[in-house]
Amino acid sequence: MTQFDRRNISMMMDFYEMTMANGYFHDRDINTKVAFDVFYRKNPDEGGFAIFAGLEQVIEYVENMRFSKEDVEYLQRQNLFSGEFLDYLRNFRFHGDIYAFPEGTIMYPDEPILTVVADLIDAQLVETAILAQINHQSLIATKARRIVRAADGRAVSDFGARRAHNMDAATYGARAAYIGGVVGTATVSAGQMFNIPVSGTMAHSWVMYYGDEFEAFRRYAENYPDATVLLVDTYDVIHSGIPNAIRVAKEVLEPMGKRLKGIRIDSGDLAYLSKRVRRMLDEAGLPDCKIVVSNSLDEFTISSLLNQGACIDSFGVGERLITARSEPVFGAVYKIAAVGENGQFSPRIKVSENVEKITNPGLKDVYRVYDGDGHAVADLLAICGETVDMSQPFRYVDPKKPWKNRSFTGCSVKNLRRLYVQDGKRTQELPELDEIRNYVKKQLEHEIWEEEQRFENPHSHYLDMTPDYYDLKMSLLHDTRKQHGE
Amino acid sequence: MTQFDRRNISMMMDFYEMTMANGYFHDRDINTKVAFDVFYRKNPDEGGFAIFAGLEQVIEYVENMRFSKEDVEYLQRQNLFSGEFLDYLRNFRFHGDIYAFPEGTIMYPDEPILTVVADLIDAQLVETAILAQINHQSLIATKARRIVRAADGRAVSDFGARRAHNMDAATYGARAAYIGGVVGTATVSAGQMFNIPVSGTMAHSWVMYYGDEFEAFRRYAENYPDATVLLVDTYDVIHSGIPNAIRVAKEVLEPMGKRLKGIRIDSGDLAYLSKRVRRMLDEAGLPDCKIVVSNSLDEFTISSLLNQGACIDSFGVGERLITARSEPVFGAVYKIAAVGENGQFSPRIKVSENVEKITNPGLKDVYRVYDGDGHAVADLLAICGETVDMSQPFRYVDPKKPWKNRSFTGCSVKNLRRLYVQDGKRTQELPELDEIRNYVKKQLEHEIWEEEQRFENPHSHYLDMTPDYYDLKMSLLHDTRKQHGE
Repeated sequence: MTQFDRRNISMMMDFYEMTMANGYFHDRDINTKVAFDVFYRKNPDEGGFAIFAGLEQVIEYVENMRFSKEDVEYLQRQNLFSGEFLDYLRNFRFHGDIYAFPEGTIMYPDEPILTVVADLIDAQLVETAILAQINHQSLIATKARRIVRAADGRAVSDFGARRAHNMDAATYGARAAYIGGVVGTATVSAGQMFNIPVSGTMAHSWVMYYGDEFEAFRRYAENYPDATVLLVDTYDVIHSGIPNAIRVAKEVLEPMGKRLKGIRIDSGDLAYLSKRVRRMLDEAGLPDCKIVVSNSLDEFTISSLLNQGACIDSFGVGERLITARSEPVFGAVYKIAAVGENGQFSPRIKVSENVEKITNPGLKDVYRVYDGDGHAVADLLAICGETVDMSQPFRYVDPKKPWKNRSFTGCSVKNLRRLYVQDGKRTQELPELDEIRNYVKKQLEHEIWEEEQRFENPHSHYLDMTPDYYDLKMSLLHDTRKQHGE
Repeated sequence: MTQFDRRNISMMMDFYEMTMANGYFHDRDINTKVAFDVFYRKNPDEGGFAIFAGLEQVIEYVENMRFSKEDVEYLQRQNLFSGEFLDYLRNFRFHGDIYAFPEGTIMYPDEPILTVVADLIDAQLVETAILAQINHQSLIATKARRIVRAADGRAVSDFGARRAHNMDAATYGARAAYIGGVVGTATVSAGQMFNIPVSGTMAHSWVMYYGDEFEAFRRYAENYPDATVLLVDTYDVIHSGIPNAIRVAKEVLEPMGKRLKGIRIDSGDLAYLSKRVRRMLDEAGLPDCKIVVSNSLDEFTISSLLNQGACIDSFGVGERLITARSEPVFGAVYKIAAVGENGQFSPRIKVSENVEKITNPGLKDVYRVYDGDGHAVADLLAICGETVDMSQPFRYVDPKKPWKNRSFTGCSVKNLRRLYVQDGKRTQELPELDEIRNYVKKQLEHEIWEEEQRFENPHSHYLDMTPDYYDLKMSLLHDTRKQHGE
């Protein structure tokens, strides 16, 4: 392997993780435990939910994180860190615990989707990489699901590599898109690493190289008689591409006992062209020839095409999926929730100038509450370890309307979080990618209200609190406000 | 090195590169030469130009591209490729030539910024990775420049790693942002790999960990007396953060003979707060204490803050820079321009359903035309090798108004393209990152019209053609239209 094929994930962090770590190293007992929550504040695209993705890579990262001789020498050259701290980094391994939702869980704002419970320095150093991984993959998984929903049962494939934000974004983005429901990817590295179905046929360059479109189609069909999908828009779809494709179906494939599998249109008015092409193919006795389209598609253009009655079997979606173009930022944050003091965790709250930035303090459990039909009616924050018994009506607080007296009746709950990493090592085998993808599908088909999945004004999932947890938060907020200048 | 620190750039490609390569392998003399141009069609954010970035990584990639045993076995399992082709891949090395603009060149739509001249299969296999690299880095460099322009001489730093589209996007994005003019990055891996200045101080967690804000500030100042920048918005900027910061300046730093270097505000109304904070610091005898702000900044919010008279010395810009949030797609494409036939290159043109997708055919030179003051007045496409002599008035064609009779008078020209890779190896040492950054700065300060740099309705740079090149394109367009269904 060359330098070229290396990357250094352990150093992919904000510099302040190091300045803080060095500071903690000298000030405090470095075995002080802390808890940091990962959560996000707003669903992308004004949607009703998001999909949690990237956990497997987070676990790989914390298991493998270490600083090489070169890394430590680089830090030394910054002239800010003590020799003792640099020595400590040389032998550093992450020894903390990680609790998280299973990968693929439908998640909502302000929930602790992942919590790092670790020694102070361990917890600080992993912040940036954990956030980057979860932000990226959750963003793309959530966007992919929107596009898949718009396609309404038709296949969606990821064609985005060339517009991805560099190599990793193409590969891990394809993984996330698959979790979100695409049927496959064009990106070979993603197919290879994650066992995602790959597909791909020809570019315009194939047709332009041969010069003659029929000749180009014929050559392709002879090479791939069982998988002939022809790109028909290099010159003129209606007057050249489709007539040549039909000719290949008749003159090249039929004599071999093969059928033309599909055609792809990558430009022009896809609604008009697809309807006209469908008629031409049907009239030529090719009703089984699929129509694939591509070209700047997303959930909005796909919905519009289908509303216009476009005759499309499959969508290749590129740049708007792999960059989540409509909203390319997933804003998960990493906030300290509790600090170990005298063997106990003491909760911490952040009281920001922006009211929506106030955090949920302390160690918490997150329960998903299901009605008798198995629908997820709300999520519930509880103090970690607090008993949540739904066998009788269970009083809860809606933090947006805390004056109301509300109860869950006839419901069941599931604790959403599991311990995935203990003392720096994974506690369990992680699911295959197909299992994660099926888990997403199952939740959206059976548990999550349709009203939360629609694009326009989706229902906001309730994040309620147990009365004890609500009281804890309020009293802490009160104390902190009093202490700091108000 | 563990598996975790590996990546496989050679396999980061669209699957169709492989299906086409396998097809070419069996159909044609694989030593047929072709030329593919990289160009883009539209400046991001309705801007007047873009910055070419990512060339160094493209060159590293083509020099190092190869397929391992595992890669070939993976492809074999797809059951589409012949044994002969797979054997060929085992020993594959890129042997082509690459012409390109120097990295950091100001570029405009429809110009061939990079051209691969290579054997058919070589040229096809490198498409996806070249595009991903150039699209990503050019996107971020161009966005960074917009933000730096808005900051109007104040420092801008990249704080984006946690919201980047995974690891590479953070690291290479920081490189591109530096090319675009930011003064440094918080991303340690980027600092280490590319020798970019890194900086970073503390997160809210530092303050929340200590619980008492003064105590937290004091500890930080004692650790970093020469670089104390305090984050003042954990609780309340005006009533807690700034009073505590001033106290640290007086009680901790002054006795050591040190000054408080800066404070950072990460939430709230930054215009109001910065003005109030500036007054408080000045009144406390700290006029040299810098005000750094962060929180969802971009060129628009920065312009607005400065218009409101905000007192800000330095901007930390995160998610909106590292994702180019306002327009996260840079749309460079890779189109075949010429095919070798009987020892000569025969031009190819793509005539799309979308008129703006018609390509510029053939092997070309690109000249930048300067007036007597050294301003770039236009770029000029010529047939490759064509003589362009500006010592007397030079007639050219504006392809949007071809009926006009126009000439350049008293101008000079520079051929923008150089040969960077020959037979798969770099032909020259590549510039240091600081040289690239300075080259961008020099062009924007001395060569590129201010009218092309403004945000609103920037002047469109002219891309003119020599009469001979224009005639070549028109005749090819005519032939192709006639041949394919019109």
